[in-house]
Amino acid sequence: MARVVVDVMLKPEILDPQGQAVQRALPRLGFDGIADVRQGKRFELEVDGPVDEAALARIHEMAETFLANTVIEDFTVKVEETSEVAGASK
Amino acid sequence: MARVVVDVMLKPEILDPQGQAVQRALPRLGFDGIADVRQGKRFELEVDGPVDEAALARIHEMAETFLANTVIEDFTVKVEETSEVAGASK
Repeated sequence: MARVVVDVMLKPEILDPQGQAVQRALPRLGFDGIADVRQGKRFELEVDGPVDEAALARIHEMAETFLANTVIEDFTVKVEETSEVAGASK
Repeated sequence: MARVVVDVMLKPEILDPQGQAVQRALPRLGFDGIADVRQGKRFELEVDGPVDEAALARIHEMAETFLANTVIEDFTVKVEETSEVAGASK
């Protein structure tokens, strides 16, 4: 089982109200020095079997047709080592 | 200017209805072989100045107190090379 991550972000030229709301709130919460914030979606896909070229092509197609709205969003597809343990917050 | 990425995902033990909805739809759209789908948030922070230990500690605190709900979510903080161009969908 391998994990493939699809990150979907608004295209740079598209206004990101959510990101702006986060950015405006940061100084009020005492966090300075953040020039810009963009917010998007992260999909973690657990893939049966090896992630070969064919599987990646299929996932790319899935991202393009289903996970992202390519009119306003860009996406990236990355294979992630499943052994990498996500940095838990606690 | 450096880019720091904060990924926020539901803890593994928390039910992810959005991810399940995506996973159930995939076979109907002709995409098989995806055992599980988890959906979360991705924040791209453009940071003024160098991303040193102090800046990373501040961003970690910001993620813990503001970007993630640490009762149900885990987060990771990664420094991304700003030169890396996001794979555009076209």
